[in-house]
Amino acid sequence: MFDVLFAHIQEKVALTEQDREGIQSVFMARKLRKRQYLLQQGAICTHLSFVTKGLLRAYNVDEKGHEHINLFGWEGWWISDLNSFLFQEEALLNIDAIEETQLLMISLADYNALMVRVPVMERYFRLLYQNSLATKDRRLISSITHTAEEKYLQMAHRHPQIIQRVPQHLIASYLGLAPETISRIRKSLALRQSR
Amino acid sequence: MFDVLFAHIQEKVALTEQDREGIQSVFMARKLRKRQYLLQQGAICTHLSFVTKGLLRAYNVDEKGHEHINLFGWEGWWISDLNSFLFQEEALLNIDAIEETQLLMISLADYNALMVRVPVMERYFRLLYQNSLATKDRRLISSITHTAEEKYLQMAHRHPQIIQRVPQHLIASYLGLAPETISRIRKSLALRQSR
Repeated sequence: MFDVLFAHIQEKVALTEQDREGIQSVFMARKLRKRQYLLQQGAICTHLSFVTKGLLRAYNVDEKGHEHINLFGWEGWWISDLNSFLFQEEALLNIDAIEETQLLMISLADYNALMVRVPVMERYFRLLYQNSLATKDRRLISSITHTAEEKYLQMAHRHPQIIQRVPQHLIASYLGLAPETISRIRKSLALRQSR
Repeated sequence: MFDVLFAHIQEKVALTEQDREGIQSVFMARKLRKRQYLLQQGAICTHLSFVTKGLLRAYNVDEKGHEHINLFGWEGWWISDLNSFLFQEEALLNIDAIEETQLLMISLADYNALMVRVPVMERYFRLLYQNSLATKDRRLISSITHTAEEKYLQMAHRHPQIIQRVPQHLIASYLGLAPETISRIRKSLALRQSR
């Protein structure tokens, strides 16, 4: 399981054998069955989780009972309610498994200690968060300025395997579209390709 | 000018005299007049900017010519199109000054070199980005699940001085509300307070 994590870290920074041991000692492994919760809205998010296998979604349920999907996480992604994890506040997000999932999890105390014990992780997380912020900004602007079809196409282009793995109604929720809109776009694309 | 930057950094990490010299050597100062652009949509964002005085806004103009305000930045804030800065892609954001503004700016090459030369900046930026991501997630969820009045009240509570300094129609654009909605909320609040 640690191979996936180490590979992901080593895309950004080099790790020594000692670094790898330091990292390995503070993560714990966990499995989730399909539909099992990792976090529920209102609870405290006690761990930052790295996905080594499987697929999860993070979503918020508003007062009217409507679900709004915030994020999908699959192999090589970190998933958590970051605000709840860092500041030990009530989570705004539910996180549950869409597929059977394997995680490596780290607590806040271990996360803070890891930066001191394995200083290169400071750089890794700086790069991770920096790139994630840049992507999120782009997504926020894109959600304002693009049509439904453009948003779907962007997602299909960037994450083709997710379009295959995630049920259509969940993709609709993520993009803030009606499920019928996704069906309509898929049909219109299939039509164009068959011409 | 560097006092504001050093104070901001030292809220997160301790700086030695040598660290301060290293930082000072890679930032350049710039002034903007009211309404002057720091960045225009479609250009490359060449610098990461720290505001030592004044107030700016970052906004996107969509294909129909509508402005969408993404962020306000004032004393102690970093402002840029992060995606454009990091990956040297075309900016999606315009940034201009609402008040006369003073900035400290760093280029991408100097930014990358700074992390090596002043390693504690790696930690500073990790914490900055980490907290910013947590806040952005909260804002995204809040924008979905809160009413216009709740959003305005949250902003007034978190950033009371910004509510005073930013013209009402810009706050409306930031919150994705009609200007009349802000007027209505202000009146209803004033009414409640006077009872």
